[in-house]
Amino acid sequence: MGKLYVVGFGPGGYEHMTDKCIRVIREADVVTGYTTYVDMLKEYFPEKTYLATPMMQEIKRCRMAVEEAVKGQTVAMVSSGDSGIYGMAGIIYQVAEEMGAEIEIETVPGVTAASAAASVLGAPLMHDFAVISLSDLMTPLDLIMKRVDCAGQGDLIVCLYNPKSKKRTGYVEQAAKILMSYRKKETPVGIVRNAGRKDERAQITTLEHLKDAEIDMFSVVLIGNSQTYVSGNRMITPRGYEV
Amino acid sequence: MGKLYVVGFGPGGYEHMTDKCIRVIREADVVTGYTTYVDMLKEYFPEKTYLATPMMQEIKRCRMAVEEAVKGQTVAMVSSGDSGIYGMAGIIYQVAEEMGAEIEIETVPGVTAASAAASVLGAPLMHDFAVISLSDLMTPLDLIMKRVDCAGQGDLIVCLYNPKSKKRTGYVEQAAKILMSYRKKETPVGIVRNAGRKDERAQITTLEHLKDAEIDMFSVVLIGNSQTYVSGNRMITPRGYEV
Repeated sequence: MGKLYVVGFGPGGYEHMTDKCIRVIREADVVTGYTTYVDMLKEYFPEKTYLATPMMQEIKRCRMAVEEAVKGQTVAMVSSGDSGIYGMAGIIYQVAEEMGAEIEIETVPGVTAASAAASVLGAPLMHDFAVISLSDLMTPLDLIMKRVDCAGQGDLIVCLYNPKSKKRTGYVEQAAKILMSYRKKETPVGIVRNAGRKDERAQITTLEHLKDAEIDMFSVVLIGNSQTYVSGNRMITPRGYEV
Repeated sequence: MGKLYVVGFGPGGYEHMTDKCIRVIREADVVTGYTTYVDMLKEYFPEKTYLATPMMQEIKRCRMAVEEAVKGQTVAMVSSGDSGIYGMAGIIYQVAEEMGAEIEIETVPGVTAASAAASVLGAPLMHDFAVISLSDLMTPLDLIMKRVDCAGQGDLIVCLYNPKSKKRTGYVEQAAKILMSYRKKETPVGIVRNAGRKDERAQITTLEHLKDAEIDMFSVVLIGNSQTYVSGNRMITPRGYEV
């Protein structure tokens, strides 16, 4: 019986991979994943056998991975960040069940993009927060914006994943507008592009100016709560609320 | 000039530490942290010099760490999970500023408890979620429960940190009641105790029965959204919403 590991390798650099992630990739017969991720790993593990598929072919990739495991191979299905947060873990379980595959599946957690981005910005995630993806590929836009509104009501720090793509350019501004009905327009916002990778870049702006910030699909946006402040070039959310 | 690393070593086991976490601890002159965490690390790094303080003495611990760094030492200030999520990163920046300490501070992100717990349960965090601490030590209880309510309104998956302590025993039930006004009482709930540690234990129950579940301060509680289901012994939130 083969074994399928669903591995999150963290933001991208070798240093942020967990000991288990490194071991599982080293010992796997096959490493499979989205082409971009596979290319990132080839630098650190050049000797491995890779099976890559382009974006949007998640189901096909999962089937390939499960089939290899059924053949008795040890497979590492990789994705960046944590495989359990908007990752491949869910689809793998679903595909394996649908295929009636008798394989062992194990999820190897990793450092998610919110953690990586926060570590670059200072300490913005010291209090309750919401993680919301702005991708409306699988989620109605109304529901996404309702969630932003709820996070606003609850004074939750907001972490936006997939803030923009080539097609989706206005959602970040829409989210900022909603949050400004609950929070000051001066509320600090941190944007980190390629967090934890070689070409990492961070900027701190405000809710009001978020619409003018440079943001793309490799960025994560962290919006402070009512207590968040900037000191020096650090974005900090204090732990306590003044009661 | 000394350097102070604020290091999250993940859920606890060596295998979930990042490569950088391991390297920073190995190379530090002094490792400082809450006694329980230091005891966990002594098993893996027995040769280090440790400076431990009991719980509730966070400020004192931070001062000690900053003082060591001012002396020119390389200090690793450790905590479990991700140091940037309800961790020590914020207080360290605040204390260092207050002390006027000219030291370099770097946060090393780790695998947070939500990721560790999710990996044990299956794939519950495949969609938008809120992380909320039920500790009312520094946050008014009203605000905590308002946040739970907002998460309910927005159909966010809810991850509860610090669900119970010896003094706080009724808040989980209170949160479950609030969420049942938005979600079915059969909504799956996963509880993981000591996620990613040797004596890890997981159970899956429902919102209705959450009040009877065994939960303590070492547990994390993951409450599904309206789409979450249980298959076999796995808790899964599908990625897409049927539109």
